[in-house]
Amino acid sequence: MYKGTSAHTEEVSSPLEKVYRFVDSHRDEFLQGLSKLLAQPSISTLGVGINETAKMLMDVMEESGLRTRKIETSGHPLIYGDAVVGPDKPTVLIYGHYDVQPVEPIDAWATPPFQPTIRDGRIYARGAGDNKGQLYAQLMGIRSLTEILGNVPANVKCIFEGEEENGSPHLEQVVMDNKSLLKADLAITADGPLHESGRPLIVFGVRGMVYVELTARGANRDLHSGNWGGPIANPVWRLVRLLNSMKDVKAGRVNVSGFYDRIKPITVEEMKALRAIPLDREGISRELGIRLSELPEGEDYYTKLMTEPTLNICGIYGGYTGAGTKTIIPSKATAKLDARLVPDQDPGEVFGRLEKHVAEHGEGIEIKKLGSMRPSRTPLDNPFSSVIADAMRSATKKEPIIYPSLGASLPDYIFTRILGIPSFITPYANHDESNHAPNENLKIENFIQGTKCCASILTHLAGDRR
Amino acid sequence: MYKGTSAHTEEVSSPLEKVYRFVDSHRDEFLQGLSKLLAQPSISTLGVGINETAKMLMDVMEESGLRTRKIETSGHPLIYGDAVVGPDKPTVLIYGHYDVQPVEPIDAWATPPFQPTIRDGRIYARGAGDNKGQLYAQLMGIRSLTEILGNVPANVKCIFEGEEENGSPHLEQVVMDNKSLLKADLAITADGPLHESGRPLIVFGVRGMVYVELTARGANRDLHSGNWGGPIANPVWRLVRLLNSMKDVKAGRVNVSGFYDRIKPITVEEMKALRAIPLDREGISRELGIRLSELPEGEDYYTKLMTEPTLNICGIYGGYTGAGTKTIIPSKATAKLDARLVPDQDPGEVFGRLEKHVAEHGEGIEIKKLGSMRPSRTPLDNPFSSVIADAMRSATKKEPIIYPSLGASLPDYIFTRILGIPSFITPYANHDESNHAPNENLKIENFIQGTKCCASILTHLAGDRR
Repeated sequence: MYKGTSAHTEEVSSPLEKVYRFVDSHRDEFLQGLSKLLAQPSISTLGVGINETAKMLMDVMEESGLRTRKIETSGHPLIYGDAVVGPDKPTVLIYGHYDVQPVEPIDAWATPPFQPTIRDGRIYARGAGDNKGQLYAQLMGIRSLTEILGNVPANVKCIFEGEEENGSPHLEQVVMDNKSLLKADLAITADGPLHESGRPLIVFGVRGMVYVELTARGANRDLHSGNWGGPIANPVWRLVRLLNSMKDVKAGRVNVSGFYDRIKPITVEEMKALRAIPLDREGISRELGIRLSELPEGEDYYTKLMTEPTLNICGIYGGYTGAGTKTIIPSKATAKLDARLVPDQDPGEVFGRLEKHVAEHGEGIEIKKLGSMRPSRTPLDNPFSSVIADAMRSATKKEPIIYPSLGASLPDYIFTRILGIPSFITPYANHDESNHAPNENLKIENFIQGTKCCASILTHLAGDRR
Repeated sequence: MYKGTSAHTEEVSSPLEKVYRFVDSHRDEFLQGLSKLLAQPSISTLGVGINETAKMLMDVMEESGLRTRKIETSGHPLIYGDAVVGPDKPTVLIYGHYDVQPVEPIDAWATPPFQPTIRDGRIYARGAGDNKGQLYAQLMGIRSLTEILGNVPANVKCIFEGEEENGSPHLEQVVMDNKSLLKADLAITADGPLHESGRPLIVFGVRGMVYVELTARGANRDLHSGNWGGPIANPVWRLVRLLNSMKDVKAGRVNVSGFYDRIKPITVEEMKALRAIPLDREGISRELGIRLSELPEGEDYYTKLMTEPTLNICGIYGGYTGAGTKTIIPSKATAKLDARLVPDQDPGEVFGRLEKHVAEHGEGIEIKKLGSMRPSRTPLDNPFSSVIADAMRSATKKEPIIYPSLGASLPDYIFTRILGIPSFITPYANHDESNHAPNENLKIENFIQGTKCCASILTHLAGDRR
């Protein structure tokens, strides 16, 4: 593994400033290019416009100085592109996705989702923030470096997949099959929003997940609760009893034996980082409409969100769910739960623990696994951390916030576990990007800043600011 | 109160046999009359055909020897009719209803619901069993007595309401307003099915009910469980915890303080009756598709069904209830529960206990009362019991089964509590009448038997078999 640079505290050299000025002077051209990419639909779940987008993306990558190839999967293709400068420089693997979410509800869009429109300093379109805008910013970063410096300062490998919004069903296999092609020193993902303060984020991991469905069954049909109630058992009560046995709700602790096994204690650096994240409790309380007293205080908030597992009921249903009354003993009841997992919990092992608990405390209740993803975390003190922080500082003129982890889950383990490299998530979108929602947008300022960040990261990693 | 007769063990005298023979010989005519009444829709929830049916019913009642009047309510009218023989004879209040359930799903009917059709010894039509067929059988019993004997042997008062399938919203008020008109020594309701063995039933009460809805609220919208899970509480968990605190599911005991207060111990006669009810555990297990081991044994089955209260979850829902996965912290969760009550539990008091429990164990969870009905029970050793049993034995040639109570709820308290008289439910429909369902039907044999039962009950009550 490449060993970083110790020069990251020095002042940013003039060539990178030239790149920044090039970016600023090409702002309209870059925006036009992005508009063209955004105008091309690429809805992965519907299979709309995938090949057209892949082709267009490969053209942009080639124009930016990357040699490209298409990696076919049994789903949508993955686009690979690289620019090599030499084995004495580190290699960065940049991950992104060119597919987008569906556009429904279409009536809620102020302008059509595939007719990119600029207003109030933002570009509105499906995919503006998630993820075409951020992906394109990185390509323009690479292009600007190539224009000004003649080449990229560090080796770059890009993988842009077309199935992220569909759960990345083929990404792991592609990476397993192309380990040597994808060999790199670190991975960078630019997806998601910045901190609500506008300060840049460097995220060092994600929580994993296991998703289960519990089903309790009673009679073969709903029964009249008057004619049968008493002698005939109710499956909803059995499900409630099982669920209650799985968690001490008041203490917020999961009561499934072995659930907390294998959790690595957080490090001193992680604890410090958690303490340093600004928390606007009043703002959250207002935004969610919940009482301030219900929110954890201080670093507890981010400790619970980023470094502790959860067991959460996503949905529960059984019997009559309409208005008013219906007097029945329901035939069955179902609960859907996700457990967010932290390093080094293993989704398969946790599912086994849940299965055992259900067998012991919920006789006859069925448990099914509906999905899983491994957690991932890159140590805060890895050799690239301060380089990337310096690079972000240089490009944004703001102090980055360090997130030891997202609360959410992404296939980050593919980099940290399968490729065995550190992985950094550096989101460039504005906090209110409305991803997965109508009127998705990206602030132009953020788009330009993302372009500069990419250029800055590659330059800083090379230890080379000429 | 009229003091019954001690002659009820004697052999049935010949005049009643004459009435039975009259019924048998007028079977086709009675069936034609019933067909006409069934062909006239009277769907109370839709307000369809109510006045036409009320008019038709009054005509039949007049032809049967009753003086009728219509009692208007702010809903559908109640039809009253009486035949008076003298103050030395007991007065029977016969309750029934002329409204019917909606017919959906219409496609599932083999013949149209308002085109009465006879096949395989049954008459098929909406209302055949519930309740026009049973009501008409009673009127034909009165008519047959009048034809053969010149008058009814006991005083008869009929009230037939048009809103039973709508929850009898005006019945209590009408009865309160007409206490002296409705003054009687006992009440008879012929509704519901016979025991599955085909033996006649005499039912001495009903369970009461209180219906509540519990709502737990979290944030003002569903939240991404990755982005918020940990620091933000989940209202489904809070609801599960509250529900679990309300019942020891394994022991089947309600854990709400004071819930079991006021319950009258069952009497020796009731215990004997519970033991004497035939229980086909294998049949129930097969019918419901549940394991035999899940069914209580011996008299426990009917003890739990008829003489113990329940707390039952009719429905529960919150968050994602579709197929597959969605990872959210639901914004709210709701549970609907009915508690079936036994004498002398009071629905208002029980609701107060539930409210208190929720306040103590489910902070912030809302409880609403959606409905209630008082329980009712007539003592098994009341002076009319053996008279009615003798009458049923005479008319059916079978040994009646005594139910101390139904598991279900009916406004029976109106007779026992408001009018202060004993009340008997004597169902005449076949066990598979499919009430509230497509292809509702009444076996012709049961219809004729119901006619004879009515004649027999009035004759036996008069102690007069001439």
